[in-house]
Amino acid sequence: MSLSSLSTHDLQRDLIVSRLTARFSAELSRDCRQQVPCSPSRSVSMSPSISLPVTQSIYLPRNPKQNNFLSPAKLYQKEHFLCKSVKNEKDSHAISLGNSSTFSVGTKFQLDDVIEAQQFDREILSAIFEVAREMEKIEKSSSGANILRGYLMATLFYEPSTRTRLSFESAMKRLGGEVLTTENAREFSSAAKGETLEDSIRTVEGYSDIIVMRHFESGAARRAASTASIPVINAGDGPGQHPTQALLDVYTIEREIGRLDGIRVGLVGDLANGRTVRSLAYLLAKYNDVKIYFVAPDIVKMKDDIKDYLSSKGVEWEESADLMEVASKCDVVYQTRIQRERFGERIDLYEEARGKYIVDKKVMGVLQKHAVILHPLPRLDEITVDVDGDPRAAYFRQAKNGLYIRMALLKLLLLGW
Amino acid sequence: MSLSSLSTHDLQRDLIVSRLTARFSAELSRDCRQQVPCSPSRSVSMSPSISLPVTQSIYLPRNPKQNNFLSPAKLYQKEHFLCKSVKNEKDSHAISLGNSSTFSVGTKFQLDDVIEAQQFDREILSAIFEVAREMEKIEKSSSGANILRGYLMATLFYEPSTRTRLSFESAMKRLGGEVLTTENAREFSSAAKGETLEDSIRTVEGYSDIIVMRHFESGAARRAASTASIPVINAGDGPGQHPTQALLDVYTIEREIGRLDGIRVGLVGDLANGRTVRSLAYLLAKYNDVKIYFVAPDIVKMKDDIKDYLSSKGVEWEESADLMEVASKCDVVYQTRIQRERFGERIDLYEEARGKYIVDKKVMGVLQKHAVILHPLPRLDEITVDVDGDPRAAYFRQAKNGLYIRMALLKLLLLGW
Amino acid sequence: MSLSSLSTHDLQRDLIVSRLTARFSAELSRDCRQQVPCSPSRSVSMSPSISLPVTQSIYLPRNPKQNNFLSPAKLYQKEHFLCKSVKNEKDSHAISLGNSSTFSVGTKFQLDDVIEAQQFDREILSAIFEVAREMEKIEKSSSGANILRGYLMATLFYEPSTRTRLSFESAMKRLGGEVLTTENAREFSSAAKGETLEDSIRTVEGYSDIIVMRHFESGAARRAASTASIPVINAGDGPGQHPTQALLDVYTIEREIGRLDGIRVGLVGDLANGRTVRSLAYLLAKYNDVKIYFVAPDIVKMKDDIKDYLSSKGVEWEESADLMEVASKCDVVYQTRIQRERFGERIDLYEEARGKYIVDKKVMGVLQKHAVILHPLPRLDEITVDVDGDPRAAYFRQAKNGLYIRMALLKLLLLGW
Repeated sequence: MSLSSLSTHDLQRDLIVSRLTARFSAELSRDCRQQVPCSPSRSVSMSPSISLPVTQSIYLPRNPKQNNFLSPAKLYQKEHFLCKSVKNEKDSHAISLGNSSTFSVGTKFQLDDVIEAQQFDREILSAIFEVAREMEKIEKSSSGANILRGYLMATLFYEPSTRTRLSFESAMKRLGGEVLTTENAREFSSAAKGETLEDSIRTVEGYSDIIVMRHFESGAARRAASTASIPVINAGDGPGQHPTQALLDVYTIEREIGRLDGIRVGLVGDLANGRTVRSLAYLLAKYNDVKIYFVAPDIVKMKDDIKDYLSSKGVEWEESADLMEVASKCDVVYQTRIQRERFGERIDLYEEARGKYIVDKKVMGVLQKHAVILHPLPRLDEITVDVDGDPRAAYFRQAKNGLYIRMALLKLLLLGW
Repeated sequence: MSLSSLSTHDLQRDLIVSRLTARFSAELSRDCRQQVPCSPSRSVSMSPSISLPVTQSIYLPRNPKQNNFLSPAKLYQKEHFLCKSVKNEKDSHAISLGNSSTFSVGTKFQLDDVIEAQQFDREILSAIFEVAREMEKIEKSSSGANILRGYLMATLFYEPSTRTRLSFESAMKRLGGEVLTTENAREFSSAAKGETLEDSIRTVEGYSDIIVMRHFESGAARRAASTASIPVINAGDGPGQHPTQALLDVYTIEREIGRLDGIRVGLVGDLANGRTVRSLAYLLAKYNDVKIYFVAPDIVKMKDDIKDYLSSKGVEWEESADLMEVASKCDVVYQTRIQRERFGERIDLYEEARGKYIVDKKVMGVLQKHAVILHPLPRLDEITVDVDGDPRAAYFRQAKNGLYIRMALLKLLLLGW
Repeated sequence: MSLSSLSTHDLQRDLIVSRLTARFSAELSRDCRQQVPCSPSRSVSMSPSISLPVTQSIYLPRNPKQNNFLSPAKLYQKEHFLCKSVKNEKDSHAISLGNSSTFSVGTKFQLDDVIEAQQFDREILSAIFEVAREMEKIEKSSSGANILRGYLMATLFYEPSTRTRLSFESAMKRLGGEVLTTENAREFSSAAKGETLEDSIRTVEGYSDIIVMRHFESGAARRAASTASIPVINAGDGPGQHPTQALLDVYTIEREIGRLDGIRVGLVGDLANGRTVRSLAYLLAKYNDVKIYFVAPDIVKMKDDIKDYLSSKGVEWEESADLMEVASKCDVVYQTRIQRERFGERIDLYEEARGKYIVDKKVMGVLQKHAVILHPLPRLDEITVDVDGDPRAAYFRQAKNGLYIRMALLKLLLLGW
């Protein structure tokens, strides 16, 4: 069992799949629309911007499902369903949130599950972020807070993660949906009586409309998604993936800095074990002219697979031991916690690594005015508390953005674009 | 403390009570209506079937309550309340779901609590199943999802049972109700500070409208029900009863096979300890021309009390060691898990018992086309996973039926028929 | 770490603050209204009583907050905000519950947080109790059950207290609000990964509109309140405070006896460690002609700080070893549990203390007809169960009053008066 959340194999597969997807996607959606033009078109307008007719896209029963995201096969299946059978029962809940005039969603892809960072390309990210922005408005105005009324989300947590759970549950409830909670799902399943994850999923999908799952085993989310006929969101599967964290990180950079192309990002701290920094580096490679600085104690340096991937994508990167210098150049300093649990008995190594790169007032002194400090939280003392009051300390805003991203994903998975 | 959920004593008591009930019921309801005709009558129609005027029956405050279900005393008390004081406050929530023209509910009985399988006779089962069918429609259409809006259910679980808890909570929320959850009620009560169950119930009834209780002690549900002035549903009390499981099992047979009279049922696996098979055998005795086959390793054979009861009711039964032969004859094969926890240190005996009767492709090969495999879940390897895809594998549909039965019971206990 | 919930220091501070508050409050509110008359006035009428124009008071964003309740500084800040920036987003939820014609709320104070008994004076208590009375009506009629629709309460419990948690969650849901629950918040925070309480609060405030916190450390609630920009309610912080219990105790006395001035109250049991009796004595000192009797085993006698405080306030008090005599004189006998956990290894001392003063049928025999027995629950055998049926046994009604007080506080903190 590897600790790396993005294996070299994954990274290569990703290149192939994404190319295939683009080609098939265009062909299939064109074919489908010409042959079976059942999807109603309608004008949607909520803002003064020009609204174009967009294809209405609706959450569909997906049974059987295949376990490849946005692959040609799934795309075909999806379009096929779209034109053949539509789950009408809960349409009335669906409202359109006003799509941008430039991005014609609905004709290109449909989110089935959220399992790993690799399933998102630049275009999908942009579309999700647009929805997340709408969610910020909804949360503040409470006017659209009913779009998920009547929907039930099950939070199936096989290991506790109160922060992530509350964020998802808040997202669901802010949209008018309801939640079934379990924090000790281990007792539900195999640990207690030997039931397989698959059987548990088949039971829970009978009680709910969407499953948010946290698991202690890498790959568990993928297994759940391939079993479930309702959408599954991976809320972290052991050392594997935590894709909603990856999305909120990129979203936060765009919100704080205003762009993703051309940014300079310093990744600091535990770069070997931190799945967040690995996913972030992976996703940043989708943008142009990005430069990444790695600042880590030797014992937890960024691994070669990510470095190779960045190079293959033409992303400039550099290792540095000088946090001050990096901080003075970057738009984003992404600090992370040195994870004690990775060091076992070697407390001495942990203590050494942990004190090495601290974001404090001195670092803030050289940080550019427009730049920000991010952190996936929880934070120990790798950012000193006297930094919290600085407007460039963006980590609590980042946590809040997790709410908007999760609202957006719940909306997209349950109602479509 | 006996492990049998249906003691011989219970079974005998049942015979006496049910006869008394029928007689008193008819008399009392007639008396009540003649003397104090306060219950409004109204026509209810939702289907094209002919609708008859039915008596409106409303959830009533029941204080003090007595601890015998549908007994003459309780019936009298109930009718008395019906005609004297009606809790008006939440009437507005009540909607009629359309009663069958042949079953005139409301004049015969009112469910106060759901404590044990013995409280249900054939007529009540039929009436509950009818409501459960309506619930299937409600869950799918989401049109009637508000009938329990404003009601609060407390899930008071003194031992964890995530599957059962989620099923009840989903049922409540699908009907628009709300839930107060506690999974570690032991900390709430005696275990921590020595409070009695009765005191805990008196507190919780102040916070909610209905209590769903799971407890580790046989008889706890009955104690709770006799204390509470709001309805109590037993979600399993230790080795005692789990009546909603028994109801969903019978409901599933009717849904899958289309009838209950004249069916042949094979009960397989741990028949000594499994409370579900014991309750199922008990309830099946209420139907005509039923034949039951017991297929169990010697060490966990069906006990004599149930066999005697079946014989006294004229139900044919037979023990068999040949699962293939039984499977070829039956309409329903009800497989159960051999419960390791019953074997203590004797792992060898457990392993021997466990491998003996497996439902696999070979068994499916001899199973009749219209027959089904049931299982209360969780399932280990007593049904092989390659059976899951067979349309006759009905155990996940069975789990789903638990939702409809629980929706029906919540509706009946809170709003009446 | 002291076990006393109301230190002498607190009691002195209280005297000073309350005087300052009264003076500044009058001045500031007058100034504010004259200079910046932005607060709209409107007539509110729900009852046949004469309604006066009252100033509308709205929940406000409070950032930064200061950690002194109703102090001049906070009052100024509050009024300042009231007149400058109003959080409009959720106004539509706010409904007026009909204010008494004699108490012009909104012009005098605004509740920001509920942290300790000392923040309440007689006038505030009276105003809260009035709202609690309205809540009794709302709970029964379910007509106003939507006033908190769209609001999210986070119950952040760092130690389990199912009773208190369910009471708060029921209160929130009875008013149409939603709840994010965590019972094992220790895993959320420092205990697991070393996160500070302050960081946890900053995260949770992004997901919710109000935080109800239970903590194992005295002073934790105050720290949380000074961090959060949303309201915080202390649901018990270790040996510190449990202010909502104190409020419901006083409310219950008023509801049961009909008045607070002139009452005679016997406090019985563990008076040294019980924070409820200490807070109750403190709050009773705000009323006229109160007489308090202390009946406790020597080892758990009421401490001098409270006695001195009562004397300084002119409250008559007396120690007695004769429960029968006290019971015959009092309007209220407030029994408490001897807390075993306080005695450590000295089980003998515990057993001796515990059996000393029992409220039983004999005590009920001398109790006046209008008098009542109260108890904060859970109860062991310091009140015998044969007393429960006596109408003067008011402890379960008292528990129920906790619901109304908490409904009132949630309403006041989220919507204002």
